[in-house]
Amino acid sequence: MLIINTISEIRAYVREQKRDGKAIGFVPTMGALHEGHLSLIKESTDRSLTTICSIFVNPTQFNNAEDLEKYPRTFEADVEMLERAGCAAVFAPTAEIMYPKGTPLGFDFSPLDQIMEGKFRPGHFSGVGLVVNKLFNIVQPDQAFFGEKDFQQLAIIRKMVYDLDMPVEIVGCPILREANGLAMSSRNRRLSEHAKNEIAPAINQALMSTAQCLRRLGSLEKGRKAFDNVMSQHPEMELEYLEIVDTATLETVERLKLGQKVTVCVAAYLEGVRLIDNRTFSI
Amino acid sequence: MLIINTISEIRAYVREQKRDGKAIGFVPTMGALHEGHLSLIKESTDRSLTTICSIFVNPTQFNNAEDLEKYPRTFEADVEMLERAGCAAVFAPTAEIMYPKGTPLGFDFSPLDQIMEGKFRPGHFSGVGLVVNKLFNIVQPDQAFFGEKDFQQLAIIRKMVYDLDMPVEIVGCPILREANGLAMSSRNRRLSEHAKNEIAPAINQALMSTAQCLRRLGSLEKGRKAFDNVMSQHPEMELEYLEIVDTATLETVERLKLGQKVTVCVAAYLEGVRLIDNRTFSI
Repeated sequence: MLIINTISEIRAYVREQKRDGKAIGFVPTMGALHEGHLSLIKESTDRSLTTICSIFVNPTQFNNAEDLEKYPRTFEADVEMLERAGCAAVFAPTAEIMYPKGTPLGFDFSPLDQIMEGKFRPGHFSGVGLVVNKLFNIVQPDQAFFGEKDFQQLAIIRKMVYDLDMPVEIVGCPILREANGLAMSSRNRRLSEHAKNEIAPAINQALMSTAQCLRRLGSLEKGRKAFDNVMSQHPEMELEYLEIVDTATLETVERLKLGQKVTVCVAAYLEGVRLIDNRTFSI
Repeated sequence: MLIINTISEIRAYVREQKRDGKAIGFVPTMGALHEGHLSLIKESTDRSLTTICSIFVNPTQFNNAEDLEKYPRTFEADVEMLERAGCAAVFAPTAEIMYPKGTPLGFDFSPLDQIMEGKFRPGHFSGVGLVVNKLFNIVQPDQAFFGEKDFQQLAIIRKMVYDLDMPVEIVGCPILREANGLAMSSRNRRLSEHAKNEIAPAINQALMSTAQCLRRLGSLEKGRKAFDNVMSQHPEMELEYLEIVDTATLETVERLKLGQKVTVCVAAYLEGVRLIDNRTFSI
């Protein structure tokens, strides 16, 4: 597996692959890889694509300097995992390479970027759009793979690719969970064992309980109450938002309709770590 | 010369050209072509590029519905001129093809988009960025050619390509002028013969007078006064702005420095038509 740090080298590698008739599968990450990331790599290699993974903790998507600083960095372990997973090349640039000078342009994805993550992390999606757009222009993938855990991010990237006619197919891949239901996340490393095993899994339990309520009782109010019931057993967790949105439009659901596909999205803090999760289902 | 209306067909044409080892030169226009546009086509064909010209009056860059409606459309004549100029293909999509659904994303180029054109045409550069980004993703040119008459637009496109690592080289080409000095523009067609021949050329005269004053006397105030002296002889013209900016940064010049490269930019209304022009020179 190649490890490439510069834009010109990764461009040359991609050019060479394309000249040989190979299609490129791309998995952009911020490193601190887990099974969820590897499932994206696997999806790409299963499609016989030359698989490139980027590892770059992108400063422009962090609205909180402490969060950026504390983001886990495990480069050596990441490289080992990627090698075993059949990844062909890692692109790991520095911030100086990605942002050499000046304040870069911003993206306005409104109204998609005004809710949920966008509401609580101002500028976050502009930074996500920026780095993903750059990486797509550098790597020029035929297909790119994103986890559904970042549900709103996936919607925004799909919108960007659609609006800008970017020549890449976006593939969303299911959330991977620990045996106890906790959604896999690089941030889980920052939790104590107790929090990871005994408290954080309640987020998924609360989501499942909400889903059941919404489907069986058709009541948004009872769905929210079911969520609160589970979460209230864990006062260590501080809820940031719970949103029940239309899966296609991300608009807040005001009234449930039979057959409608909805996604319940949640963000909560535990031990100073911000965790997100979501569940999609039909009413 | 091919005339192509759909995204899939132009993509197929480009793919074919690249497979044959040809590089693509691209000239995006809104039609109503004049010698200025043809000089861009010539620059591209002189470089032995397969030259594609787009003709698309882009609604998202018009902040004024009447301006959009009145924008000249001369498709048959445009096609004839392009054919003679050695253009290989014209891409002429409809608005429905370029913007099939929903409100597209926006670009934030601040502070570059807050001054001059951006100040008087809110949303204009977001729309320009959007359509140029889309066209670049569709046509995937190796080089793209823009006139320096739209000085601020050129700066913003260069910024977009730089910030997003778009794999295209931007080539700026000099303003073409009528014998009387009037900068060539599609909008000139909307002027009466009298306005075009007797009044509008004063914009260029005022710019030259300003340039001379700034260089000889080194005084911003006297430069502005020289501009006003010429323009005041033509009360039919209404000045929108006169800006003296650093050519590289587009920042307003507060004090002239010897050797500094500056650009004097102007927008004025004549017979309800908005005209822009600029002159770049060293102090």
